[in-house]
Amino acid sequence: MEKKSLYHTEIENQAGIAGNVRSLVGGEFEQLTSSPLQAVPGTNPEQLLGAALATCLNATLEAEEKRRNLPHQAIVRVAVDMGRDYQGFQFWVRAQVKIPHVERQEAQKILAVCERRCPVAKLLAGSSNVSIELVNEFAFGEELK
Amino acid sequence: MEKKSLYHTEIENQAGIAGNVRSLVGGEFEQLTSSPLQAVPGTNPEQLLGAALATCLNATLEAEEKRRNLPHQAIVRVAVDMGRDYQGFQFWVRAQVKIPHVERQEAQKILAVCERRCPVAKLLAGSSNVSIELVNEFAFGEELK
Repeated sequence: MEKKSLYHTEIENQAGIAGNVRSLVGGEFEQLTSSPLQAVPGTNPEQLLGAALATCLNATLEAEEKRRNLPHQAIVRVAVDMGRDYQGFQFWVRAQVKIPHVERQEAQKILAVCERRCPVAKLLAGSSNVSIELVNEFAFGEELK
Repeated sequence: MEKKSLYHTEIENQAGIAGNVRSLVGGEFEQLTSSPLQAVPGTNPEQLLGAALATCLNATLEAEEKRRNLPHQAIVRVAVDMGRDYQGFQFWVRAQVKIPHVERQEAQKILAVCERRCPVAKLLAGSSNVSIELVNEFAFGEELK
């Protein structure tokens, strides 16, 4: 398949964890960042990654709802936890998806299609630290699965 | 290894591609989003993912520089391109890393260590659409690798 770019952006981080991350091309983007372990203003990689997956997966769900002549009612919530790893740290990423306006069987089909279409879900598909599940109500228990 | 969370955040997207994505817990985060194919205000999954990787990898580099008693001078730039896939769309993610204040051999060792430690790099490691390379100067050619 031909690799043709429809959109290109470049993001630069000079500061490390505490400072700014910004775009150079592809539309304005600038965010203050800080350590997730410190209660100071600023976002962090955990939130940025969670926002990337939540937005990308729900945009894909929105397109699939439209294809089926359904109104957009899907909601995606992503929990990101950070903890130690054998080397450095690791994230656990759990996406929960509500598709409240269709029967469960159709909702499962819609989500399965969208997991194969969503660019961020595909990038993360190789990791055992990532899960995506259909839910009736959002609930992230204490236990990391 | 025990799965113990040191930090927990939850991010929700209700709108789809155009609207808001926000945090529910784990510190305030709210971003206006829009389609990357439309010249309207708002960020998108491409930029959010690029920012997550650039910040996480450079935070990891910063920690490794400190461990080696080096000042923090590493810079990470991430290009994200979006294009069609056999199903839906796909992203190509290319990270370039400058570690200007050490010899190339040491820089390569530092980057290799950090790729194994950085949580976001580890989440993306299973995808053939992702590359991380050490560079003397940043340059993303037209050709997607």
